[in-house]
Amino acid sequence: MTYLLGIDGGGTGCRAALADMNGQVLGTGKSGSANIMTDMNTARLNILDAAEAALADAKIDPSAIASISAVLGLAGANVGGNGAQLQAMLPFKNSLVYSDGVIALQGALGDHDGTVVILGTGSAFVTRSGNEIRFAGGWGFKVSDLGGGARLGRDLLEEALLAYDRFHPASPLTDAVMERFGGNPHRIVQFAHSARPSDFGSFAPMVFEYAAQEDAVADAILRKTVGQIEEGLDAIMAGTPMRLSLLGGLGALYGPLLSQRYRAKLQTPLNDALTGAVQLAVRHFASTSVEAIHG
Amino acid sequence: MTYLLGIDGGGTGCRAALADMNGQVLGTGKSGSANIMTDMNTARLNILDAAEAALADAKIDPSAIASISAVLGLAGANVGGNGAQLQAMLPFKNSLVYSDGVIALQGALGDHDGTVVILGTGSAFVTRSGNEIRFAGGWGFKVSDLGGGARLGRDLLEEALLAYDRFHPASPLTDAVMERFGGNPHRIVQFAHSARPSDFGSFAPMVFEYAAQEDAVADAILRKTVGQIEEGLDAIMAGTPMRLSLLGGLGALYGPLLSQRYRAKLQTPLNDALTGAVQLAVRHFASTSVEAIHG
Repeated sequence: MTYLLGIDGGGTGCRAALADMNGQVLGTGKSGSANIMTDMNTARLNILDAAEAALADAKIDPSAIASISAVLGLAGANVGGNGAQLQAMLPFKNSLVYSDGVIALQGALGDHDGTVVILGTGSAFVTRSGNEIRFAGGWGFKVSDLGGGARLGRDLLEEALLAYDRFHPASPLTDAVMERFGGNPHRIVQFAHSARPSDFGSFAPMVFEYAAQEDAVADAILRKTVGQIEEGLDAIMAGTPMRLSLLGGLGALYGPLLSQRYRAKLQTPLNDALTGAVQLAVRHFASTSVEAIHG
Repeated sequence: MTYLLGIDGGGTGCRAALADMNGQVLGTGKSGSANIMTDMNTARLNILDAAEAALADAKIDPSAIASISAVLGLAGANVGGNGAQLQAMLPFKNSLVYSDGVIALQGALGDHDGTVVILGTGSAFVTRSGNEIRFAGGWGFKVSDLGGGARLGRDLLEEALLAYDRFHPASPLTDAVMERFGGNPHRIVQFAHSARPSDFGSFAPMVFEYAAQEDAVADAILRKTVGQIEEGLDAIMAGTPMRLSLLGGLGALYGPLLSQRYRAKLQTPLNDALTGAVQLAVRHFASTSVEAIHG
């Protein structure tokens, strides 16, 4: 008996689903960070922990690990040989390492063509057209990731300082930010100096919250940002009847803000990324069953 | 006999000018970094080195240091007690520590009221109206410093990646940036990950260079950025007949790009920041001569 394994791994944790050759999930498991860009070995260990937890959950002997065919979706797998390096270090019978965007797309769209925009702390566009998968954006919040929470939060702190200097009008939102920093702009500067993307991103929900109350600064930030997201969609989807799904923690918040031409294409994601990994494992390693399941 | 001392200190170095009570410069000196935000003690030592070099240049005995009245303009002096802390550590008879923006303004405008915009790696607005000096901007490139070289460079790298993704049109400028990184967007990401403000700022001259050749991306970046600088000027100068000078490495490049209403107010800086420090020393410590020199 052989099994399929789907892995969804990133900086905040690693999830595993063990399935039979039809994609029927038998057990799941999770573990810690699997960031192959910052710590390849810890990522490998957490992937194995999650896989072993999934085997245990399915009441299958740990020795079965050597007969597993796995599809892994990992943040950073498409950067400079990271994916190939990890692939060579895994104990499974077969391993296929993809970028996390690929399994997210598969989960959200199933076997349909289309585009997903992953809007979390960062942002990335993933498009499938037949067998071709194209990535765009997602180059990190310093010079990319438009629409991601880190950029929204950074923009908001910038606006709070512009309001403090009276270069831009203040609003209830910029007042609320200023209050969080005790009214002291130097504390914003100190925060920004050492802030990680997720620290900036912690301010993103406030932007949506205040936009719902028609705060002028929140509206302006989101209008600019939605424009940037739609510039990307225009480049990718112009004139095509593609499906579109918005994923990530902010995806559902952005949906209602899109222009009508994109709202009309919006589809609720079919499944999550971990399910996408299992589906890809079925497609690659149980090809005789693909038609039955996804045809 | 007592002397006046002007000090202009920042991250890249420290300059000193020793003067008589009329502001006549007798000797100058320089030394290393005087960044009181990152290393107060090294800053103090380099300030003393520069002062001693100025005394030696003027052929005055080092023991005269205890009778000096000094005005120091130092980056970061207006942040959280830094200036006062340094002031207490100096061996001069009198010390007045100002932000570097104050001596830059004094140098550029003399005793006139007006605004200077310091446009180097960062950016800052300094305005004098009578005895009141007001600062704006200059909160660091992560969430402020609009118009500074670091922001220009960061914008340019963002545009290069947007062009790579075909979200925005490419241009000769974005092509040139891409070429510098061997055509590999991952190398831009790596660069941006660890880039200091001055690293981003190293790309700023390219933006002006290509704008002179009517590059569409360079034009768009500078149009946006000049708009941001003018929003600041609008807030500060609206309806006043104030003087305006643009300082810093990029100041002269921005001048011709300003709208006519601000180009008409532009004045070539009268003097540099070190001269400004000496002038302020005369004003504060040789008050009987002020009228004669600046009246």
